[in-house]
Amino acid sequence: MTETTSTRTSGVVASKERTLARLKRIEGQARGLQRMVESEQYCIDILTQVSAMTSALESVALTLLDDHLQHCVREAIADGTDADAKIAEASAAIARLVRS
Amino acid sequence: MTETTSTRTSGVVASKERTLARLKRIEGQARGLQRMVESEQYCIDILTQVSAMTSALESVALTLLDDHLQHCVREAIADGTDADAKIAEASAAIARLVRS
Amino acid sequence: MTETTSTRTSGVVASKERTLARLKRIEGQARGLQRMVESEQYCIDILTQVSAMTSALESVALTLLDDHLQHCVREAIADGTDADAKIAEASAAIARLVRS
Amino acid sequence: MTETTSTRTSGVVASKERTLARLKRIEGQARGLQRMVESEQYCIDILTQVSAMTSALESVALTLLDDHLQHCVREAIADGTDADAKIAEASAAIARLVRS
Repeated sequence: MTETTSTRTSGVVASKERTLARLKRIEGQARGLQRMVESEQYCIDILTQVSAMTSALESVALTLLDDHLQHCVREAIADGTDADAKIAEASAAIARLVRS
Repeated sequence: MTETTSTRTSGVVASKERTLARLKRIEGQARGLQRMVESEQYCIDILTQVSAMTSALESVALTLLDDHLQHCVREAIADGTDADAKIAEASAAIARLVRS
Repeated sequence: MTETTSTRTSGVVASKERTLARLKRIEGQARGLQRMVESEQYCIDILTQVSAMTSALESVALTLLDDHLQHCVREAIADGTDADAKIAEASAAIARLVRS
Repeated sequence: MTETTSTRTSGVVASKERTLARLKRIEGQARGLQRMVESEQYCIDILTQVSAMTSALESVALTLLDDHLQHCVREAIADGTDADAKIAEASAAIARLVRS
């Protein structure tokens, strides 16, 4: 609450850059997996890479969700508008994440 | 926001009763699984029951988390005290849930 | 393949006892959770326990699945009867587990 | 067991093509996510896409695992060589998948 608007904005920009870098890496993992399947590498080694990629994706999801709670949900509650809907929407996203 | 304190309180009580009923049922599933293992039922049938029990537990977790966002996190943000800590704590709980 | 039938049987018995002990502990966790909800302990502490219980259940499932592959699926394949059906059934159980 | 070697081989090739097509689509999802983050689309919509991508990855993993059981593990058991090691390795891969 003590941070200025510009500090918060640059925090959001930094977080966006980090998320893009992580998604770029995940895209690279998807390409790496295609090469592994193409060259018929050992199934278990491919599966290990799939698990690593799934974990990387989950980390991105958890960061996005934390950002969402810290910004959108927090502002909706502070403003007193739309708070119920925002919380319900966040809970639904968490459920999809836990079950996926 | 238009609900009175007493409506909200009875909502919390109803939710607590529902959670207790679901945990009681989950405890019954744990006992049922012991009987299945004891009488050496078919592994795949036991595994099906374990999956059902895991899903039931996840549903309880998602309900508890939604209640937590709707009450504790919302109040911390509305009060302007402790909001950062409460959101960080909720995000950590979500991460444990997604990874468990 | 070199182990005698009696070694294998006592392995199965030991594994059964371990699984029963773990399910008994999980049943205790379900009861502990009811006490936590009943006495209105802090939601995040309850969620931490739910995550611990989910992990414990997953460990039991993975042990049961490993036993199933080592015994039922292996025997079906070695006998040459029913191997396709057994493998399909194991894969379906793995899918339920991954998605639950 | 009644299928000829050539039927089985063409099954493996078809399965390889399908897996490559699915990984290509997943790579496209990773690129789509970058565009969504780049153009600052709504966090919840991004999260929905992340969940869809995680589910698609899990499906690929389950198909690879089923193939592995049907071919590598099955052959190891039928040959009577290396069966223990192959089953232990498959169980470890399943555990990584369930926990990721």
